[in-house]
Amino acid sequence: MRILITGINGFVAQHFLAFLTKQKEEFTVLGIGRSEPAFDSKQFAPLKIEYAQVDLLNRKDVGDILKHFKPQYLLHLASISSVGHSWKNPNDSFVNNTNIFLNLVDQIRLLDIPCRILSIGSSEEYGNVSETQLPLTEESPLHPISPYAVARVSQEMISKIYADGYGMDIIMTRSFNHIGPGQKNVFVISSFAKQLVHIANNPSAGKTVITGDLGIIRDFVDVRDVVKAYYLLLKEGKKGEVYNICSGTGVSLQQIMDKMCGILNINITLLQDANLIRPNDNRIIIGSADKIKNKLGWIQDISLDKSLTDIINWWKEKDA
Amino acid sequence: MRILITGINGFVAQHFLAFLTKQKEEFTVLGIGRSEPAFDSKQFAPLKIEYAQVDLLNRKDVGDILKHFKPQYLLHLASISSVGHSWKNPNDSFVNNTNIFLNLVDQIRLLDIPCRILSIGSSEEYGNVSETQLPLTEESPLHPISPYAVARVSQEMISKIYADGYGMDIIMTRSFNHIGPGQKNVFVISSFAKQLVHIANNPSAGKTVITGDLGIIRDFVDVRDVVKAYYLLLKEGKKGEVYNICSGTGVSLQQIMDKMCGILNINITLLQDANLIRPNDNRIIIGSADKIKNKLGWIQDISLDKSLTDIINWWKEKDA
Repeated sequence: MRILITGINGFVAQHFLAFLTKQKEEFTVLGIGRSEPAFDSKQFAPLKIEYAQVDLLNRKDVGDILKHFKPQYLLHLASISSVGHSWKNPNDSFVNNTNIFLNLVDQIRLLDIPCRILSIGSSEEYGNVSETQLPLTEESPLHPISPYAVARVSQEMISKIYADGYGMDIIMTRSFNHIGPGQKNVFVISSFAKQLVHIANNPSAGKTVITGDLGIIRDFVDVRDVVKAYYLLLKEGKKGEVYNICSGTGVSLQQIMDKMCGILNINITLLQDANLIRPNDNRIIIGSADKIKNKLGWIQDISLDKSLTDIINWWKEKDA
Repeated sequence: MRILITGINGFVAQHFLAFLTKQKEEFTVLGIGRSEPAFDSKQFAPLKIEYAQVDLLNRKDVGDILKHFKPQYLLHLASISSVGHSWKNPNDSFVNNTNIFLNLVDQIRLLDIPCRILSIGSSEEYGNVSETQLPLTEESPLHPISPYAVARVSQEMISKIYADGYGMDIIMTRSFNHIGPGQKNVFVISSFAKQLVHIANNPSAGKTVITGDLGIIRDFVDVRDVVKAYYLLLKEGKKGEVYNICSGTGVSLQQIMDKMCGILNINITLLQDANLIRPNDNRIIIGSADKIKNKLGWIQDISLDKSLTDIINWWKEKDA
């Protein structure tokens, strides 16, 4: 099985590679990154991993890579997936989500490569929703309210057109907030964990944690359950369809903070930073995972408590 | 009043300039085109028209133009607006609709230029609709089913984000099929007119007209009524809102063909070309213009019969 993975240096790709090492099948992976490889491929033995440094906006380079590797599957993880970044650099966010995807699928179309494509979307696509609409199903309307969310809706619409209009084999996700060990601390849970571990390791230092709005409710799902879903969708998803990937449970950032303080057994002071509060942010997002559970048998293995413990342990090693 | 007009060489821009010559106000226009000017600005006296040849994808050039001209109004008409082209060149269609708009508004944001922007959208954004949803209002859901339509929905979502998230002064349209003298014959009505005029002028030649699916129903509106609406929206539209521009009446291509044959007093033979039938095309689109009529007092001046007569007369001059 020949898999092309974009964004290979990223958090999700690294967990996907670890997942592949535990499967019985044999895989040949071509990983694409923007820069030099940021990982040692030996840790994923016996996977065969090639690496290519490619700008996904460069049509010729993308075409050359596709002709060379002839992927049977494309897991397109490359993305600038931060909502905060998208408010500061909307054009950059749009181009590095929508346009890189469009270049990829259009080259696959032009080269007529029989390749199943997984297009990653986001729960942010749903936008500001009222509580009566929860949990969000794949039928819920999309009202994106950040530049990042607009880029993801555009990508999903492009996927639909290429699947329905050109008959290409594309499956789409709306992935809810994933968390897990290894995530950068531009993302909220990882940022909290890093700050809390630092406090736990330095009892004499200050006990202040800087946060945005802790009332925000999100549906968190462990990255290891997410990559399991991606594999399942690549193998058994239905062409042209979209699948939520989520836990089905809403948790506030305050609850996460309290749980992590409990795991670390510390008391802290909270400081709210207005710069971390985004224009017109979604208050509450909870998804329904019924479709992927009922149609494809996906189950969630990792509890929120285990996720948070693993994230804290990962930062303990980094902070040590 | 300083107006920047992109796509200045195009069909709609030329009619907009003609409209401005009839107003009492004084205008300074900077027209942007991709190539050399394709018109003589003297015909639009006493308008002051500057011209700039700029690639709207070039961020620096766009920024320089904005800093130089400091527009109070931006009428963004540049677009590759053919659905057919978008199926053949989806990437080109997307970039030359969505990305050029994104570059423009993002530069205006970064340079903090107080400028009212009119973002042109399309009735194609509504996509495949059932007859029970007709006429389409601005509240109707968007289900785009061509690459061009996806690009226009993306542009509209970007407009909403820049208006709601950054407070920029952007108004959006969903413009239905416009027709009128001067339109290129890649568009269906103009193509019919050209072929019929040729037949009328050459009685001894063949009487066959090549068409796509004549059962398709569209809401046609004369370009001169469209540019009047654009001017009204620039002056009095409400920031962050979207307005249909349409006639409110559906007409089949067969009816148009019959009317034009009647005007020219000819009989013809029809030949359907499968290449002109697009994948999953919309069968029927009719809009409601109630919002722009009721809120802003727009009225349609030009009947379908007058439009068709003027189009035929324009081709008669060209074919002569």
